[in-house]
Amino acid sequence: MQKSYFRIRLSKFYFSDLKGLSVELTYKTAGVDIKAGEETVKKIKGFAKSTFNENVLSDLGLFGGFFEFQKNVYAEPVLVSSVDGVGTKLKVAIAMNVHSTIGQDLVNHCVNDIAVCGAKPLFFLDYLAFGKLNPETASSIVEGFSVACKQNGCALIGGETAEMPGVYQNNDYDMSGTIVGVVEKKKIINGKRILKGDVLLGFVANGLHTNGYSLARKVLEIFSFDQKFDDLELPLGEELLRVHKSYLNLITHLKKEADIHGFSHITGGGIVGNTKRIIPDGSDLKIDWTAWELPYLFKLIQKTGSISDQEMRAAFNLGIGLIAVVAKDEVDKIINASIALNETAILLGEVI
Amino acid sequence: MQKSYFRIRLSKFYFSDLKGLSVELTYKTAGVDIKAGEETVKKIKGFAKSTFNENVLSDLGLFGGFFEFQKNVYAEPVLVSSVDGVGTKLKVAIAMNVHSTIGQDLVNHCVNDIAVCGAKPLFFLDYLAFGKLNPETASSIVEGFSVACKQNGCALIGGETAEMPGVYQNNDYDMSGTIVGVVEKKKIINGKRILKGDVLLGFVANGLHTNGYSLARKVLEIFSFDQKFDDLELPLGEELLRVHKSYLNLITHLKKEADIHGFSHITGGGIVGNTKRIIPDGSDLKIDWTAWELPYLFKLIQKTGSISDQEMRAAFNLGIGLIAVVAKDEVDKIINASIALNETAILLGEVI
Repeated sequence: MQKSYFRIRLSKFYFSDLKGLSVELTYKTAGVDIKAGEETVKKIKGFAKSTFNENVLSDLGLFGGFFEFQKNVYAEPVLVSSVDGVGTKLKVAIAMNVHSTIGQDLVNHCVNDIAVCGAKPLFFLDYLAFGKLNPETASSIVEGFSVACKQNGCALIGGETAEMPGVYQNNDYDMSGTIVGVVEKKKIINGKRILKGDVLLGFVANGLHTNGYSLARKVLEIFSFDQKFDDLELPLGEELLRVHKSYLNLITHLKKEADIHGFSHITGGGIVGNTKRIIPDGSDLKIDWTAWELPYLFKLIQKTGSISDQEMRAAFNLGIGLIAVVAKDEVDKIINASIALNETAILLGEVI
Repeated sequence: MQKSYFRIRLSKFYFSDLKGLSVELTYKTAGVDIKAGEETVKKIKGFAKSTFNENVLSDLGLFGGFFEFQKNVYAEPVLVSSVDGVGTKLKVAIAMNVHSTIGQDLVNHCVNDIAVCGAKPLFFLDYLAFGKLNPETASSIVEGFSVACKQNGCALIGGETAEMPGVYQNNDYDMSGTIVGVVEKKKIINGKRILKGDVLLGFVANGLHTNGYSLARKVLEIFSFDQKFDDLELPLGEELLRVHKSYLNLITHLKKEADIHGFSHITGGGIVGNTKRIIPDGSDLKIDWTAWELPYLFKLIQKTGSISDQEMRAAFNLGIGLIAVVAKDEVDKIINASIALNETAILLGEVI
């Protein structure tokens, strides 16, 4: 497919119609219907703009996205950033042809990674790469970004969409996202105040979130995605696509109501791998693995794949997506604060 | 390859040794030699740390990268960000097995995109995804990021490296990068002050930079990468891998010495496509396409592929990587300022 390489710089689309010229050219040469392409660009622009707030200087964004920083709100502002992908959860989305939620997974994952540091998200940028650009798929993914950005109060201020024939198979794509947030230096949450005897309070995840999918897919490939199980609410594929939960509201609320020594976002590496990152050198974790019931999806994976407990614990969140580390005498506050948000704090271990 | 999915969150490696646990596990399950993996992680940490400045709060970066923002330096700071990839220039790097410069391409591309807005880069984050992680390749790429980050005075504060079997072929990989910079609101360069009669001054590119590679590769596939041409300094493959030039120093210098109405970074869409993004509605560009000699590499592509001038102009930079738009009476200042940096300003058109 000669001449098929092009880039859509979403930041251009978001902010400037002049780029229409290049859109036309590139879609045409890529063999994509121009009208469909223009429709997509219009939609994408709309999705992005729907996330803007007064800090986004939208008319200025030509080669980059512009975000006015409210410097007076902070005494010593620290920018906190994180970049992530969604791993092979993508393969499930592609197989199911459901692309509306995978963007939400990515935004929420990124938001959680900086929220556990105490930061509030400001803006998000995405990278999308396709073997062959499918305008509807791209539009659906970006809608997902915008939905989650709005939910988390951050602006989608830029993106890059690339068509890379020969790198990705036709229907395949990959994505990454970068979030930038801010925290007052004195309010950084980094685990430095964690002491031996502090307790771990876990909060439930919404499925696998975005980790362990290569293993899960391998194990579960004997089933079809529309297979139903008595103990699963939804068909298997839909269970696997459940959206990575954002803990931003919960974290914000807990910070107000209690003195938090540390937060851990449970992603690859599991409960222990992630929580160890914030506890002081020389301390360790004692987890009561019976403190909560393993959700059925994990039981199904473990049983079907004959996977050891050790491996399950390293690959999956096992139903716990966030852990707060607090002093013992803060536990009641956390439990009460959680109830107000319809969340349940599970006492699942301590720092030893 | 069961259990092969894992993520290396470079941000963790950069800042925390606790994550050693997860490194070991993941390398082992991926069939990668553990010692080699540990060596790589050590190297990658070293590369990233080599880019740090006093604003990077390295001991704090657990789930995210921390960058202290010097708010007092700016009256009205605006954060400028951009995300990009390098397109199928990757395919050339992979075919040549040269991975040390592709990271520089990405950083410089991102830096230019915000520098043309008047911004100074602060920090950069990368995303790398492999079919099968090759520690040496990963290390070489990240070294490239660090080299360019240091050259541009920005910190490599985070990254994500994912192994995604089934999405990428074994030796293939993709990458994206996000840069965040800052500009004083009143010093934003956005083309708003461009007037009819302003002139375009071009500055030479260092080869194709990162655009047009799918077309170039398709056309040039009849040659081998080590083929030499009388009019090319290096063998073809090396010419194709020439590093995307950073214009940060040049832009910084020109801003000091002259009144710049607009800068345009020539990427996908070419000279016209990119410069049109910054000129006012109702104006157009008149380019003198004979004002500079087309570098031989572009001549070779055009001749070999029988490509029309129009298509060449939309797909490639044609040897011009940056354009400054200024009033006529600023031209001498620009020319003199350029000479001081061993650059030549080429008068190549005007705004009509």
